[in-house]
Amino acid sequence: MGLLRLRDAGKVYKSVGEVDLGPNSDEVYLHPKVKAPRVAGFLVKIFTWILESPFLGAMALYLLKKDNLIHRFLSFAEIQEQPLFTPNHSWEDFQEQNVSLINPNLCPIKRVQEVVNCLPEYLESTFSDSASQFKRRSIRDFWNAYRSGETTPLVVAERFLSALKESDSSNPSMAFFISYNAEDIIRQAEESTKRYEKGIPISAIDGVLVAIKDEIDCIPYPTTGGTKWLHKMRPCVEDASCVKQLRSCGAILVGKTNMHELGAGTSGINPHYGATRNPYDRNKISGGSSSGSAAVVSAGLCPVALGVDGGGSVRMPAALCGVVGLKPTSGRVSDSGIIPLNWTVGMPGILSATIEDALIIYAAISNELPLFQPTLSQTITDVQIAKYGKWFNDSTVDIRNCCEQALEMLCKHYKWKVIDVTVPEIEEMRLAHYVTLGSECFASMAPYFTKLDYAELGWDARVAISAYGAFSSRDYLNAQRIRRRQMYFHMEIFKMADVIVTPTTGVTAYPLQSDALRTGELDYINGAALVRYSIAGNFLGLPAITVPVGYDDEGLPIGLQFIGKPWCEATLLHIAFAMQMLCIKRCKKPEVFYDFLKNE
Amino acid sequence: MGLLRLRDAGKVYKSVGEVDLGPNSDEVYLHPKVKAPRVAGFLVKIFTWILESPFLGAMALYLLKKDNLIHRFLSFAEIQEQPLFTPNHSWEDFQEQNVSLINPNLCPIKRVQEVVNCLPEYLESTFSDSASQFKRRSIRDFWNAYRSGETTPLVVAERFLSALKESDSSNPSMAFFISYNAEDIIRQAEESTKRYEKGIPISAIDGVLVAIKDEIDCIPYPTTGGTKWLHKMRPCVEDASCVKQLRSCGAILVGKTNMHELGAGTSGINPHYGATRNPYDRNKISGGSSSGSAAVVSAGLCPVALGVDGGGSVRMPAALCGVVGLKPTSGRVSDSGIIPLNWTVGMPGILSATIEDALIIYAAISNELPLFQPTLSQTITDVQIAKYGKWFNDSTVDIRNCCEQALEMLCKHYKWKVIDVTVPEIEEMRLAHYVTLGSECFASMAPYFTKLDYAELGWDARVAISAYGAFSSRDYLNAQRIRRRQMYFHMEIFKMADVIVTPTTGVTAYPLQSDALRTGELDYINGAALVRYSIAGNFLGLPAITVPVGYDDEGLPIGLQFIGKPWCEATLLHIAFAMQMLCIKRCKKPEVFYDFLKNE
Repeated sequence: MGLLRLRDAGKVYKSVGEVDLGPNSDEVYLHPKVKAPRVAGFLVKIFTWILESPFLGAMALYLLKKDNLIHRFLSFAEIQEQPLFTPNHSWEDFQEQNVSLINPNLCPIKRVQEVVNCLPEYLESTFSDSASQFKRRSIRDFWNAYRSGETTPLVVAERFLSALKESDSSNPSMAFFISYNAEDIIRQAEESTKRYEKGIPISAIDGVLVAIKDEIDCIPYPTTGGTKWLHKMRPCVEDASCVKQLRSCGAILVGKTNMHELGAGTSGINPHYGATRNPYDRNKISGGSSSGSAAVVSAGLCPVALGVDGGGSVRMPAALCGVVGLKPTSGRVSDSGIIPLNWTVGMPGILSATIEDALIIYAAISNELPLFQPTLSQTITDVQIAKYGKWFNDSTVDIRNCCEQALEMLCKHYKWKVIDVTVPEIEEMRLAHYVTLGSECFASMAPYFTKLDYAELGWDARVAISAYGAFSSRDYLNAQRIRRRQMYFHMEIFKMADVIVTPTTGVTAYPLQSDALRTGELDYINGAALVRYSIAGNFLGLPAITVPVGYDDEGLPIGLQFIGKPWCEATLLHIAFAMQMLCIKRCKKPEVFYDFLKNE
Repeated sequence: MGLLRLRDAGKVYKSVGEVDLGPNSDEVYLHPKVKAPRVAGFLVKIFTWILESPFLGAMALYLLKKDNLIHRFLSFAEIQEQPLFTPNHSWEDFQEQNVSLINPNLCPIKRVQEVVNCLPEYLESTFSDSASQFKRRSIRDFWNAYRSGETTPLVVAERFLSALKESDSSNPSMAFFISYNAEDIIRQAEESTKRYEKGIPISAIDGVLVAIKDEIDCIPYPTTGGTKWLHKMRPCVEDASCVKQLRSCGAILVGKTNMHELGAGTSGINPHYGATRNPYDRNKISGGSSSGSAAVVSAGLCPVALGVDGGGSVRMPAALCGVVGLKPTSGRVSDSGIIPLNWTVGMPGILSATIEDALIIYAAISNELPLFQPTLSQTITDVQIAKYGKWFNDSTVDIRNCCEQALEMLCKHYKWKVIDVTVPEIEEMRLAHYVTLGSECFASMAPYFTKLDYAELGWDARVAISAYGAFSSRDYLNAQRIRRRQMYFHMEIFKMADVIVTPTTGVTAYPLQSDALRTGELDYINGAALVRYSIAGNFLGLPAITVPVGYDDEGLPIGLQFIGKPWCEATLLHIAFAMQMLCIKRCKKPEVFYDFLKNE
């Protein structure tokens, strides 16, 4: 009751049935008023000390929760709905039309084979290798080159290692990887090369280089989670389930990519392993938290990489680095062998140069439920794309215009339709997701934190952990009630539309400032703009994908996001493929780029 | 991080697979050391004021959580499991053998008919109406008396009203009901009487008196939840789903029974509506929170009543008042129209004089999933009953001996087997359930609390609410991780056994002290003894039933509890029926008792 005396006024949520989801809804689109200036350097340290002091810290956190509307929208809100704790969907409820079912008992190798069999032929002819046009190499490019003997996995691996050394020693270092083991890479490449020599490659991804975010267990590497200490307390003893499947298909696992410490930020600035640089501009952030995975695909080091997406952490850096990022439906990919930074919002995702490659890797690692196989070679008709204008436009002018043009081109080309809708309570959902992610991270990781000398943690991670530990059980439960509301809203919208379209981020890659390199930075305004469109994918377990569709006036990549119905990755991939095919000719080469298939 | 500095040592839970569930397990049975003397009267007020003051309250709550091992077992514990948020079971996984399936689309009337058709005939012959033997009237007694014209629902209703007046005006008042409406009762009784006169009764429960706990919506009554204010903020506009079904079968709904305020206690002492007296001894508690529902069945006012069981709240008062209490599997009965005091542990339950009557009402109100119909008329063989000796024996000598004898008699008579097992982490589960119930109650009810003048709340309810509001999201999440552990343990035990047997409570009805009547009392030692065996039913959603099996040396009733596999109510009812048949001849008449079928 003491608590109740301290209350602010809470929002009284209306009944979900009374919320108008149509284009003329009177639901207010709330431009989040994040009340926090950018803080970096010494100020971050002071802020950390305040938050960590017992009484001052409690007061500061109270004010932060109040100022950032957590009190109003969650803690003290009146919500009619019961909590919805996990975003699990029954796949029987969402069966797609016009797709063929892959037998769920097939092994990864066979699943990859089935998908490769239905890839469109015309992709090859779309690209010429003329100097005027830039194109990242795809899995099929490697597969064809290996089979034809044009090159071998060993040659590619050696070129990879020398490129990596170069990027490491450049000034500033690109900080792509946290760890890689040249010997282990060469050994895998030699084995793969032998298989091709004998004419018995395992699958289309045999010999393909794959990078793994350092949040996912992969032998022989420690899993640091971007920290200096977690791997000492939580040893990596075997491959994560998704890594195991890729390895069984013959993929060459090339090491562990850099990430935002504990996934607790979106900039990709890591005080221990360096700030991952954006291949399009070394002085810009790569986005996070799967910063390294996005950057290595962008820079051509690997055609594909794995990330983990708990709050847009695959899609955001993918967009900022100009590559494809796919977060499948919650439950589609096993999370066994991933650092348990949360339980109900995160899962592995895929970063790749092309939709086609995302599809191949998706087929390899999806083992929880029957897979639907998109028939990329035929175009589906009659697609309805939901768009919430006020939300869509809450991004920079360049992003807004570029995404709008791409969408128009898509609909015009395929005669698909845009349906104007209202997605209500977006800021409320962002806060509910933050409380959920933070609470779960704190509950899961606290036993490690208690054994830790805090000095081993980065400053911005310490700030995040202080905030994560400040939520009450009521905050958490009310956040889950918001989850039920949003699930209702989204399922209603999906009665009208096949996908929801948004930009992937509200801003493009912003400058990496030198004062942030050691302490990280607290930049909640840019942070909020980065996650603006990511949350539904995580909080509601929906599949979502980002496709590169253009560049801002500085030449920095812009992504367009499609959010799909649960279990409807086939439709999502199909639409994303159509979008990419229309944009890929405009693709620009990054400042840092390697092509291991190009004759030197 | 501030929080982490204040930490106590947390328990490091071992992997569930390493926990030995066998009889010789080295798992420690923890006799809970509740560190709190009984507090009543003015001291409760002082304690409330301390808890409600902002800073002193926070400190007091911290110490309470620490002293009661919440810190050690939950807040600061190391638990490997992910949270399990809801105790939902797939009924396909637990199909019972040798029971017939009732079509789930049947209406309540037909479901009751199906069950009545398979009742054993011999029940009648077991009882003689000789003066030497006490027996409460069952639904079939009323059904037979109404059909034969021996009496009418109207006569019974009138006798009920006069008995109620008598019990109300006695000194002390029995405080059975919070509200009843003579006019409404008579109207229902007249309608039922007419149906019998015309020879068209609706079902076997046509004209049967049923009392409803004042936590369940029932027209024309306000739903107070035992408070003076909740019904003003949450008006009752229609019957709860379970009430609607009973009404459709012709039952006479006779009013709203007394309960512990907000279900936040186990004594049944309500400062606003009086302490419900135990019909076996007016100076003893009735137990709670469904105190009135248990007492009216015990006193013969109704053959059956509905309660709500969130932490043993049906089974505890049933045991203390010498009647049957059934909590079905979570999800079996709709919770629509129940005050949302929690979301994941509570559900409606049934109080009745006999197992047969519990079965009939269960058939009427279970509508969520296919019902299994127990064939009470045939005895099942080869039943395995799991028993954890140290836990079983953590009760008073009388309870222990009485329950032990009843169990021996049961196994001897039917050649069933007792299997010794170890149920680990029982105290941990009790605390995890408390954190869950408290957190959910606080999140759900806080919008009401904030609009309230606290003076309208009872003192012990205010203490409970202060404690409920003090849990962090980490406490809540760790409690759900304990839920997953316990689910694993119980499912493992259910691989070896059909049911788990325990006493229903660790103590029998204890004295109602006069200093508690206005303020309630804080008696955590007796409270912990009362809930000792109740928690798995709620926290894991398991069906559980209490059967009266004897009396202590003061003549106060003792209940034996069977906890069943999910969805296996048929087996549970069957075993409970067998138990009751062996004990019913020893049944003693309460001090306060009415028999509306007896010729005056």
